[in-house]
Amino acid sequence: VFAHGETAALVDGPAWIQAMLDFEAALARACAQAGLIPTEAAEQIAGACRVELFDVAAIGRAAAGPGNPAGPLVSALRAVLPPEVAGHVHLSATSQDVIDTAAMLLARRAAVPILADAALAARACARLADEHRQTVMLGRTLLQPAVPITFGLKAAGWLAGISRARAALERALAEESALQFGGAAGTLASLGAAAAGVEAALGRELGLPLAPLPWHTERTRIAAIAAALATLAGSLAKVARDLTLLSQGEVAEVALATAGGSSAMPHKRNPVAAIAVLACAARTGPLAATITAALVQEHERAAGAWHSEWEPWAELLRLTGSATAWSAEMLDGLQVEVARMRTNLLAAGDEVMTESVVSMLTKRVGPGRARELVDEAVARSDQDGTPIATELADLTAGVLDAAELERALSPESYVGAAGTFIDRALAQYGEG
Amino acid sequence: VFAHGETAALVDGPAWIQAMLDFEAALARACAQAGLIPTEAAEQIAGACRVELFDVAAIGRAAAGPGNPAGPLVSALRAVLPPEVAGHVHLSATSQDVIDTAAMLLARRAAVPILADAALAARACARLADEHRQTVMLGRTLLQPAVPITFGLKAAGWLAGISRARAALERALAEESALQFGGAAGTLASLGAAAAGVEAALGRELGLPLAPLPWHTERTRIAAIAAALATLAGSLAKVARDLTLLSQGEVAEVALATAGGSSAMPHKRNPVAAIAVLACAARTGPLAATITAALVQEHERAAGAWHSEWEPWAELLRLTGSATAWSAEMLDGLQVEVARMRTNLLAAGDEVMTESVVSMLTKRVGPGRARELVDEAVARSDQDGTPIATELADLTAGVLDAAELERALSPESYVGAAGTFIDRALAQYGEG
Amino acid sequence: VFAHGETAALVDGPAWIQAMLDFEAALARACAQAGLIPTEAAEQIAGACRVELFDVAAIGRAAAGPGNPAGPLVSALRAVLPPEVAGHVHLSATSQDVIDTAAMLLARRAAVPILADAALAARACARLADEHRQTVMLGRTLLQPAVPITFGLKAAGWLAGISRARAALERALAEESALQFGGAAGTLASLGAAAAGVEAALGRELGLPLAPLPWHTERTRIAAIAAALATLAGSLAKVARDLTLLSQGEVAEVALATAGGSSAMPHKRNPVAAIAVLACAARTGPLAATITAALVQEHERAAGAWHSEWEPWAELLRLTGSATAWSAEMLDGLQVEVARMRTNLLAAGDEVMTESVVSMLTKRVGPGRARELVDEAVARSDQDGTPIATELADLTAGVLDAAELERALSPESYVGAAGTFIDRALAQYGEG
Amino acid sequence: VFAHGETAALVDGPAWIQAMLDFEAALARACAQAGLIPTEAAEQIAGACRVELFDVAAIGRAAAGPGNPAGPLVSALRAVLPPEVAGHVHLSATSQDVIDTAAMLLARRAAVPILADAALAARACARLADEHRQTVMLGRTLLQPAVPITFGLKAAGWLAGISRARAALERALAEESALQFGGAAGTLASLGAAAAGVEAALGRELGLPLAPLPWHTERTRIAAIAAALATLAGSLAKVARDLTLLSQGEVAEVALATAGGSSAMPHKRNPVAAIAVLACAARTGPLAATITAALVQEHERAAGAWHSEWEPWAELLRLTGSATAWSAEMLDGLQVEVARMRTNLLAAGDEVMTESVVSMLTKRVGPGRARELVDEAVARSDQDGTPIATELADLTAGVLDAAELERALSPESYVGAAGTFIDRALAQYGEG
Repeated sequence: VFAHGETAALVDGPAWIQAMLDFEAALARACAQAGLIPTEAAEQIAGACRVELFDVAAIGRAAAGPGNPAGPLVSALRAVLPPEVAGHVHLSATSQDVIDTAAMLLARRAAVPILADAALAARACARLADEHRQTVMLGRTLLQPAVPITFGLKAAGWLAGISRARAALERALAEESALQFGGAAGTLASLGAAAAGVEAALGRELGLPLAPLPWHTERTRIAAIAAALATLAGSLAKVARDLTLLSQGEVAEVALATAGGSSAMPHKRNPVAAIAVLACAARTGPLAATITAALVQEHERAAGAWHSEWEPWAELLRLTGSATAWSAEMLDGLQVEVARMRTNLLAAGDEVMTESVVSMLTKRVGPGRARELVDEAVARSDQDGTPIATELADLTAGVLDAAELERALSPESYVGAAGTFIDRALAQYGEG
Repeated sequence: VFAHGETAALVDGPAWIQAMLDFEAALARACAQAGLIPTEAAEQIAGACRVELFDVAAIGRAAAGPGNPAGPLVSALRAVLPPEVAGHVHLSATSQDVIDTAAMLLARRAAVPILADAALAARACARLADEHRQTVMLGRTLLQPAVPITFGLKAAGWLAGISRARAALERALAEESALQFGGAAGTLASLGAAAAGVEAALGRELGLPLAPLPWHTERTRIAAIAAALATLAGSLAKVARDLTLLSQGEVAEVALATAGGSSAMPHKRNPVAAIAVLACAARTGPLAATITAALVQEHERAAGAWHSEWEPWAELLRLTGSATAWSAEMLDGLQVEVARMRTNLLAAGDEVMTESVVSMLTKRVGPGRARELVDEAVARSDQDGTPIATELADLTAGVLDAAELERALSPESYVGAAGTFIDRALAQYGEG
Repeated sequence: VFAHGETAALVDGPAWIQAMLDFEAALARACAQAGLIPTEAAEQIAGACRVELFDVAAIGRAAAGPGNPAGPLVSALRAVLPPEVAGHVHLSATSQDVIDTAAMLLARRAAVPILADAALAARACARLADEHRQTVMLGRTLLQPAVPITFGLKAAGWLAGISRARAALERALAEESALQFGGAAGTLASLGAAAAGVEAALGRELGLPLAPLPWHTERTRIAAIAAALATLAGSLAKVARDLTLLSQGEVAEVALATAGGSSAMPHKRNPVAAIAVLACAARTGPLAATITAALVQEHERAAGAWHSEWEPWAELLRLTGSATAWSAEMLDGLQVEVARMRTNLLAAGDEVMTESVVSMLTKRVGPGRARELVDEAVARSDQDGTPIATELADLTAGVLDAAELERALSPESYVGAAGTFIDRALAQYGEG
Repeated sequence: VFAHGETAALVDGPAWIQAMLDFEAALARACAQAGLIPTEAAEQIAGACRVELFDVAAIGRAAAGPGNPAGPLVSALRAVLPPEVAGHVHLSATSQDVIDTAAMLLARRAAVPILADAALAARACARLADEHRQTVMLGRTLLQPAVPITFGLKAAGWLAGISRARAALERALAEESALQFGGAAGTLASLGAAAAGVEAALGRELGLPLAPLPWHTERTRIAAIAAALATLAGSLAKVARDLTLLSQGEVAEVALATAGGSSAMPHKRNPVAAIAVLACAARTGPLAATITAALVQEHERAAGAWHSEWEPWAELLRLTGSATAWSAEMLDGLQVEVARMRTNLLAAGDEVMTESVVSMLTKRVGPGRARELVDEAVARSDQDGTPIATELADLTAGVLDAAELERALSPESYVGAAGTFIDRALAQYGEG
């Protein structure tokens, strides 16, 4: 449920260790390029930086000693190398350089399926918006019948949310992810004059931009990416919430292509994908809050706040990845019950057309009198049980003729700028 | 403490009501431009849209009826106008149009002092970074002595965090704030063909960009701005945390210009500004989480999630505004105790120079042997109480001569790329 | 919306100041009882401890100086007293003693309407549970039709949640609230040997239990009460969520007595009370999280974490108070549409009785075969559009006779232990 | 770091599956006791309910189908049993019955080491409080020097927090944990008249109390336990925060027995245990907030909120368990540097004794004049750099004699009721 799609495998324990090994391999090569260690040693180190060679669980347990897994991993890496090469591992780096850079690599790797699945979800929304421009349905506000809308407009709103959130995440990853490389306290002092050269080579090796200075305790990069993830998950959950409501038995305006059964009830068709998205998003917000709270880091390395980021970071990626994978499925195969939408709209009755009647009356009798007439019709209908249309016909006699009233009471004629809004949303999506 | 600076007055009850009135005034003018209502009526409406004319508390109480303050405000506005004008108020708008647009206006108005104070705080950091390039001090990791850094480097890190967070907020406000205008369920149906024209005029009147479509339940705009506010507050709190630690009695490396007294203790000089920043930031993260959770809004208007945003939105602005105001003061008048920084660094002893000695030894005896020698010196010193320098001299005799060892033990010679990093941070700040 | 009922006025600015004044009055009397100050001075002080005498807003502004409002209040109190009396104010107390004790008084005062309204809400649930023992309705799981339940069972579940949460809050207030009195750093040193006596008298004066030792930075009391408030709000929001769903147009199984209108749509009957409860509860959780995070307080007084509690504390009380006030109203006047519940249940069709048929068949053909037969009937019905009952009759011919099948398909006969559960819930409520 | 101690293994994937199997085994036996299935079948089922027989990862993956792991587990369990027995598995239960009951079993099992380690931590605090009654040290408020306290008083404060939080968790587990058993929608309809009997037997088998009615969507039990866990973690983090501050190089008043090294710096002795506790507690608050938010569950089974509880529940247990394990170690071996405490106190100077001088002077010249004299001495000392004692001697000549002033300036004589408070805290601990 929470490890759906491809993201989970990109952020688990072995993925972390591989990303840390990628740092060590790249560091060795960068040091070799700077002439600090022999090229052959660097290649031997890089050759050993494969997670299959290591006991991931053992490194995790050993992390309790120094308080992070970097030290144990470096020891383990040195242990598989000849002594004369082992000494060239992890030159000048501090544990946080390894772990922060690995965290950035994890995010970039996990982002590939996240962004791809979000794009699929957005595309499905765009298709629904386009196909259902004319599909009239009941608009619902505060979970009560409001006025007619089109399903296309609803889908265009989903599209806007997902597209914006996806674009924001893409930009955050591009602008906020960066190499971490500062050594013991952010000065790279142990590298002397070679510092900038090694840093540049390391960034090139890993494909990561350089930061102006080490960001060991400057965590706005981490916080910005975390917030973008939580916002994307939330934008998907808005869609999932709508789908769970629309697929209620009494509403039945959509059905999810794949539905879950029940161990107790043979008839059940549960909207599992939507439920999963909602569950993922319920968790991403508080995880992002954990990371926001961790902006407050002491001096040159924090005593706890930094450590508190690690698992939530991976969780945020995994859960947002699950939410996007579920969303792509859920939207791609969505069954839209056009006829039922119309049925439900008509069942809501002329009540939902009262604003329309006010609008038409306003042109004849002014806004105040228009609202009075319609309020009176609603009140009478409530009291006597007569149809609102009857009361309206009675009260507006002499102001509206029968055809005008009928038009005012027709849902199709009262979806306003829905088409324009769909066009604008699709246009923006097309440019995005 | 939490209403410091100019922001608080821009987000309180009257500020909300004024922003809502600004919407109504602009709507009247937009309707007049579209020929829907007489120009004179629009001007009469606009003339009445001044908060001084209304009982803000009464509107707040009346909000309990319909569940929001827009209806009561519209009624109150109509009540101060002649009947023939009153009917032209709030044409085609829904309560959420008024309140969401007001929320955006509030954010843009509150952002003026927030961004200005954040700029002052950043400028103070830039000045500190530049002035203290050579001010050597103890770097501290995990709240333990690490290796030397410069105070300029520390300030450059503060600068980077505040600048990035400030820029992100500025961009979020520019890109995410937008007019809300959709009518009852987002179709603007009651405006008929005039919809797009009124919308465009309304945006112009208010100086707010148009969204492709109404975003009544598409809340990524709100969430993005909220996250940017919380991140800015957090970036300031990182500085405040450092300042509280640096101003501890035993450390005494900085002092805040304005300090608070104690009702019980005559000698107290409390770092009130830094404490206030920390307190503000402790609250902004969970407030942003409230808004992130509210991304999940039902159908065309949410039953509760939308409402849950209102007060947290204003609180986020107020608290971030207080944090920036306090930060500007705290950094502008910061007293830096250069001599004490040096004293503390020397008091930390040669221990903090052991990485430096390892670096120098590595060039002679390779990394493995280098670390062994220094580990041995540390162990002997721990055991016998002899100075590390003595043990190092003994153990490295024949490898390093006395002058070399002295240089390796000199803090000034071991701040690495600190100067380069400061330059890069200042350069980026200059471009920003 | 968020200041409904009586709580808001008990936790606003003047209420805080009055509670702080109550501390000062009680302290003066306690000091007089211990012979430390003249009785007449104590009475003069106590006589001046009325909030009407003070400029609450000015004290709030002045709080920015020392970082809290206690100092400015003490100064203002001294200023209204003769010089020879003024010196006897605030003897030996620290600002945190005043503010923490005031926070506890606020909670106890706000709890009166909170607990009373929660009791009303619980009572309404108990009545509904009792009255609707036989009201059969559709059970819904994962927002899909499940099996029949009774409305009485649903109300009994609401009762259980509200009762448990209310009792937990009542106990938390009784066991966790306590006098705060420790002086500058928790030793009451300035009182010398009189300390314990003054403390005891102070507790008596204020009606607050004594703690074993000052809890300036031991905040589990605060956290426990905050958590109990958030849990109560959440338990009410569960009910509100159900009510918004049950009052959807397509469901219409309940209606709220008082409903909100719309500025745009004459027909609207919005479930404002339920929406307000949901909005309140969406905010209480993160506010409680702010207070939980503030458990980590430094040394003898925290630099920021303590300060971060103040406003969230009052907000939690206000919002939980609003939620209880709204809940009492919403439940007291709830209209239950018994006929519609039955209609919806029948409309859900025989599908929701398939578990019932499995149960009956199990006794004849064993569990495996029973499920197979029913799965087959569901599949055929899905494929051919024939009624499930027809398919079941066909497939179970020879196993169940027509009367048995009819009984298995009858909702009234399939509500199991609902009655027993209602009895047990009411019994526990009666004892509570 | 986050899986320290024994808790982690009690809440991982296999632990969940075993707890779910325990439910199925107990259900089979309960059904047999009620005569619903053969005793031999029940024993065969129970015999197969061992996690070693199942592929935990495969069940996790299969959970994506129905949206939870109960269905796949039941299928897997049936698959290892003879067909005639398989049908007797999971009789009348719903997935949520299995998973909620397993969650309660997990909490009770994880609580064993959590409570034990918390008890060890409390005991260590009690010992420190007792041993260090006379150990005078500097009290620090707002991270600034305040007045003298004793280390025993500080430890007594830690004791109070941990003890209260531990007791609250113990009680929450006793009172809030309960069997979940309601069947498809909480009526146990498929069990007919046997429902109550099976429920009672099931509770007995599992050692879990019965609830008055199923609590499928009444989650106050879950929320209360979660809050108690987060509060316990926070109470430990308060201690950890103090220890990281006290072990700063410049303070050096405590040292942790086991300290972590650095991959870069040979001299490092990092307070890893305290850092780990802080990191755990930074995460438990937001996790508890996730669960508090999940109180709002729809109808008879929630669409997402329930699912959002699962992983946070296990995380809360794991992290609180790690925090208690680290705390027990950290406090048990704590080195207290009594001499350094005294040195730091004296280094803080006579400033921290000014409240003491005010107290003594108050008895002679009244409170107002006393504060004036001392304020004047502080001001002169600040201005001229003369010792405060000199200024005080000058200003109080004729009021205090030299011996009196010396006594007023003596830290040992100014720890007030610290001893009394320690006694009271230890007495309460002894009773607890």
